[in-house]
Amino acid sequence: MTLPETLERAMRLAVEQADQVKGATYPNPPVGAVILDHDGQIAGVGGTEPAGSAHAEVVALRRAGTKASGGTAVVTLEPCNHYGRTPPCVDALLAAGISTVVFAVADPNPVAAGGAARLAAGGIEVVAGLAAELVRTGPLREWLHKQRTGLPHVTWKYAASIDGRSAAADGSSRWITGDAARADVHRRRAAADAIVVGTGTVFADDPTLTARLPDGRLAERQPLRVVVGKREISSESNVLNDDSRTMVIRTHDPHEVIRALSDRTDVFVEGGPTLAGAFLRAGVVNRILAYVAPILLGGPVVAVGDVGVPSIGKALRWRYDGMDTLGPDVVLSLVPQ
Amino acid sequence: MTLPETLERAMRLAVEQADQVKGATYPNPPVGAVILDHDGQIAGVGGTEPAGSAHAEVVALRRAGTKASGGTAVVTLEPCNHYGRTPPCVDALLAAGISTVVFAVADPNPVAAGGAARLAAGGIEVVAGLAAELVRTGPLREWLHKQRTGLPHVTWKYAASIDGRSAAADGSSRWITGDAARADVHRRRAAADAIVVGTGTVFADDPTLTARLPDGRLAERQPLRVVVGKREISSESNVLNDDSRTMVIRTHDPHEVIRALSDRTDVFVEGGPTLAGAFLRAGVVNRILAYVAPILLGGPVVAVGDVGVPSIGKALRWRYDGMDTLGPDVVLSLVPQ
Repeated sequence: MTLPETLERAMRLAVEQADQVKGATYPNPPVGAVILDHDGQIAGVGGTEPAGSAHAEVVALRRAGTKASGGTAVVTLEPCNHYGRTPPCVDALLAAGISTVVFAVADPNPVAAGGAARLAAGGIEVVAGLAAELVRTGPLREWLHKQRTGLPHVTWKYAASIDGRSAAADGSSRWITGDAARADVHRRRAAADAIVVGTGTVFADDPTLTARLPDGRLAERQPLRVVVGKREISSESNVLNDDSRTMVIRTHDPHEVIRALSDRTDVFVEGGPTLAGAFLRAGVVNRILAYVAPILLGGPVVAVGDVGVPSIGKALRWRYDGMDTLGPDVVLSLVPQ
Repeated sequence: MTLPETLERAMRLAVEQADQVKGATYPNPPVGAVILDHDGQIAGVGGTEPAGSAHAEVVALRRAGTKASGGTAVVTLEPCNHYGRTPPCVDALLAAGISTVVFAVADPNPVAAGGAARLAAGGIEVVAGLAAELVRTGPLREWLHKQRTGLPHVTWKYAASIDGRSAAADGSSRWITGDAARADVHRRRAAADAIVVGTGTVFADDPTLTARLPDGRLAERQPLRVVVGKREISSESNVLNDDSRTMVIRTHDPHEVIRALSDRTDVFVEGGPTLAGAFLRAGVVNRILAYVAPILLGGPVVAVGDVGVPSIGKALRWRYDGMDTLGPDVVLSLVPQ
């Protein structure tokens, strides 16, 4: 393999590491790191540990041991340069004798930034921007949004038939999508900080809103469940069971919901047509994840209702930024235009 | 390039030739052929000419001239072995001194078949099945369907927002998709034999239903326009103008429409929610082409209405067989499961 291929492959591995720790690193960003020895062989990999524990670079360096000397560190985010609850990663990289650091995205946080400059000053070759787009739209998407805006990143996720229905005429909807798509949703739930539904969904489907593993067991990490709306839900509702915590917000205003969740980073809206419409009209959705099954349902139950568009010139215009197949289904990712 | 690469590339070129003549070869299939000289260089390419004129192989052989001797013919369909309005292609291939014939799909027509066997008996090496799927789902899709069933192949095409609407709340729908998607639709219209809409679409949109080139001029070939329904449409309707012929079928029964078009091969249904629902309920749609724009419209105007599905267990189940981006839009192709 050529050097660029080796580095790209290492970065993809670092991204996988970051994806694996996503959701478990608050308030730190989910970062992945790979240490290559001086022959370009993988010597250690790591992802950010929970807050107060090691950052990704330190985990990977620890695993690489003495092989890090003269080697290359490939990291999804610029190594930090500040004392928080752990010492700066740049110190650890310098101490380990790393000769090159390759990272994808520069740290936008003024307190932690400056890592690249200090590494260069310490005699380390620094390469910035490798696979930056992959990281920006991947593991760091929500954290970068929060750094930029101070608000949590909101993903509206829905499953629908190709004709845009979220249930058949009689309301039945289990299941529209196949196993692979549903497993993907549960994986994303486990990485999210909160899942938001409206009272309408609680009344219609009585969902548990937990993140489950493919074998049906609860995932280790459960997002906060959030029920939005003014109607009283039954204390017997599944969403109030002991599987996770639940917050009930008595409002119809999406902005109020976002404010109530302002300490979170990654918010997943799974509401029905009314809640989704309200969030879209309010302009607070940062990403749409559409799981579209190759089935037709027809009938009155649409995935989203009124979005405040009277005529085609006022359409809410988005942009596809991803498209994948998951078993028999497709998942389309959209971001605001 | 290796030999397999050379042949695959030649087959892709043959498929392009076939695509270019699609719609203009009735009752012959749209076939493409490429002649490689004995060094594997392209010596001639061709597509089926209109009925009574030359088949693809003969066009390509003519262009290759003496370079065909000792060369390879790459054809999308098994060369024919019968006297129709033109002599058998196998005779032309034998006469030209071709040493190898590679084709994608065997001829299902018992009258024309047997070409491969006669070529082999004549000392020509025959390779069958190269890129067969590409051809079967591409240029020969509709013709093979007609050979198999005796009925025209029906494609339901629609354009919708990601939330399944075909117009905004006020009925405005120009345009949901972008230039590239609309150009693709016009290209497909030009290759189709008939375009079917309901009277509802004529009343709502007053479409011309012609195939136009990107510069706005009429394409050389125009499909038959078909208006289905019992309501009287105005004699001033655009669909009745002189750009092409128009058939009005006073029925609500999709089977009756198919019967009225039984001499056609490639029928394109572009109707609104009522007509599309009727065709889907009747089970006469062989392919769905969904042009899905990254916009949200909400509101009451859905792309398809009732499809006769009371509950999720009765969903109409299809299968994706293609997915592409066209400018800002995606086009999803579905076939019955």
